[in-house]
Amino acid sequence: MGRYENKFKTFLDEKRKIVDKKLLQALKNRKPGSLYEPGYYIIEGGGKRLRPLLLLLAVKAAGGKLNTAYNAAAAVELLHNFTLVHDDIMDNADKRRNILTIHKKYDTSTAILTGDSLLSVAYEYLLKDCNGNAKKIMGAFTKSLVEVCEGQSLDKEFELREAVTIGEYIMMIRKKTASMMEMCCTTGALIGGGDEQIVKGLANFGKNIGIAFQIQDDLLDITGNENDVGKFIGGDLVEGKKTFLFLKAMEISKGTDKDKLLEVIKNKGIKPGEIQGYKDLYQKLNVLEAAENEIKHYTNLALKSIKKLKNEKYREFFALLADSLIKRRK
Amino acid sequence: MGRYENKFKTFLDEKRKIVDKKLLQALKNRKPGSLYEPGYYIIEGGGKRLRPLLLLLAVKAAGGKLNTAYNAAAAVELLHNFTLVHDDIMDNADKRRNILTIHKKYDTSTAILTGDSLLSVAYEYLLKDCNGNAKKIMGAFTKSLVEVCEGQSLDKEFELREAVTIGEYIMMIRKKTASMMEMCCTTGALIGGGDEQIVKGLANFGKNIGIAFQIQDDLLDITGNENDVGKFIGGDLVEGKKTFLFLKAMEISKGTDKDKLLEVIKNKGIKPGEIQGYKDLYQKLNVLEAAENEIKHYTNLALKSIKKLKNEKYREFFALLADSLIKRRK
Repeated sequence: MGRYENKFKTFLDEKRKIVDKKLLQALKNRKPGSLYEPGYYIIEGGGKRLRPLLLLLAVKAAGGKLNTAYNAAAAVELLHNFTLVHDDIMDNADKRRNILTIHKKYDTSTAILTGDSLLSVAYEYLLKDCNGNAKKIMGAFTKSLVEVCEGQSLDKEFELREAVTIGEYIMMIRKKTASMMEMCCTTGALIGGGDEQIVKGLANFGKNIGIAFQIQDDLLDITGNENDVGKFIGGDLVEGKKTFLFLKAMEISKGTDKDKLLEVIKNKGIKPGEIQGYKDLYQKLNVLEAAENEIKHYTNLALKSIKKLKNEKYREFFALLADSLIKRRK
Repeated sequence: MGRYENKFKTFLDEKRKIVDKKLLQALKNRKPGSLYEPGYYIIEGGGKRLRPLLLLLAVKAAGGKLNTAYNAAAAVELLHNFTLVHDDIMDNADKRRNILTIHKKYDTSTAILTGDSLLSVAYEYLLKDCNGNAKKIMGAFTKSLVEVCEGQSLDKEFELREAVTIGEYIMMIRKKTASMMEMCCTTGALIGGGDEQIVKGLANFGKNIGIAFQIQDDLLDITGNENDVGKFIGGDLVEGKKTFLFLKAMEISKGTDKDKLLEVIKNKGIKPGEIQGYKDLYQKLNVLEAAENEIKHYTNLALKSIKKLKNEKYREFFALLADSLIKRRK
């Protein structure tokens, strides 16, 4: 893999800059300021830009040209930020990427409307790169929007339900997180002019890497560093979220350990002071290791689905991306 | 006009039923229930279905077939309901169409997500009727979504601003209300296969009738009956909204009358007990008549823009629709 590492890094750095510029242009000085300034603020706050990069990699892997896809790349990041802004209201989150969330910096009405407008501009930008295949591309984008809403609703529903299986959890994150990554790959492959096999292979890569990504996110809520992650560590436990870690712990624990976990469900979360105790319990039950194995499992599925990709360079780029996601600290 | 009245009434009644059925089908028994049941509840709550009917009339006026457009008709009503659900949170409204708003019946998180999902299903349904012209139709729909967000933001901004001109107000309602009606006509005309002149003429009808519609809405907030309108009468004054009536009153009042209006701005609204006093002031200043004249002005512009429509029957249907909107009590 070594020979592509520097090229991959350069690709990410260069394309991230172009995407950032496009994103800021999409919102800067747009009127009315009362609508677009909060959106600009959240986009300017940064982020990994993972979804646009996935889309652009898929364009290249399918044999297309990047300059036909930068608007679509901006669109998927705008869609992602729409979900963040609305989710942060629902989760009552104070911070995101180390800065105040929109509903905290402004108010809930502003945050609702900012989310809506980010979504509207997402569709506007996606349309700019729909040439000849608008129905397919808009269909993939819309399917992922539908599933993101369904996934978020299941996530909230699971917080209130007593019993959730790991199977149900995987189905939920497939919709809430993986669906959008799958769509990024599908959209990139379609814009790039890929045939059915390429589109399907890349879509499967996106879906499986998305599931791995979300379990990694659950893990970082426990093992991460607040400054790296950009938000409060242990927040999932405080919110009583049924993460992979929590459900795995429920599955294998007994006696007083299980009672301690049932307390989280009963009280719909824990106090910040109790986080360390639950971290220790997770360690004892080896659920962090179980999560790492699950992440590896889905990452391997992702890699398997691009094995037939003829373009060696971009096949390796995808493999390097998968590797970097496993190792990420934020 | 007389010869078409019964036919027009039959058209509305028949098509409204088909649209209602399509709308309920779009959300009924869809999983997860936690997401789609609140959406079903708000759609089942009824409504005039004005936007789908506008779209279907435009399909026929352009020479198209209705059975190619019922999904799109459902889509514009879903888009409309998305805006209502989110606006009701922002306006802190308790009731809509005589039933509890979603954020009152459930909670704010549910209402945010229900709005988002209604929008996602709107795009899903619109796509079903995009055949060969997806980019144009999706473009018109998305432009109207962008403008609805901009209009809503301006509306909220005007509540906080001291001075708003009637010109600014018209620009705001053009975006907040008229843009979607314009889009319904554009989309219908495109699906119906209309040429550029027909699309443009119908779009102008939608835009102007939309402006007239919103001023009529402002008027009904004062002259309406709570049971007819389905929400609290005088709510715009209580909320301190800068409606056409309020801005016209500001424009022509002097002395103590003006002071009384300035109080509304200063206090960002009035108490429910003060509504009658402001109703009397509006009467005294003749602003209700001024609003009626403005409604007639935009209705005439709407009628003028469809004069060249060759299909006499549907030209008369549009005229009857315009007439019914002027006379509406809800």
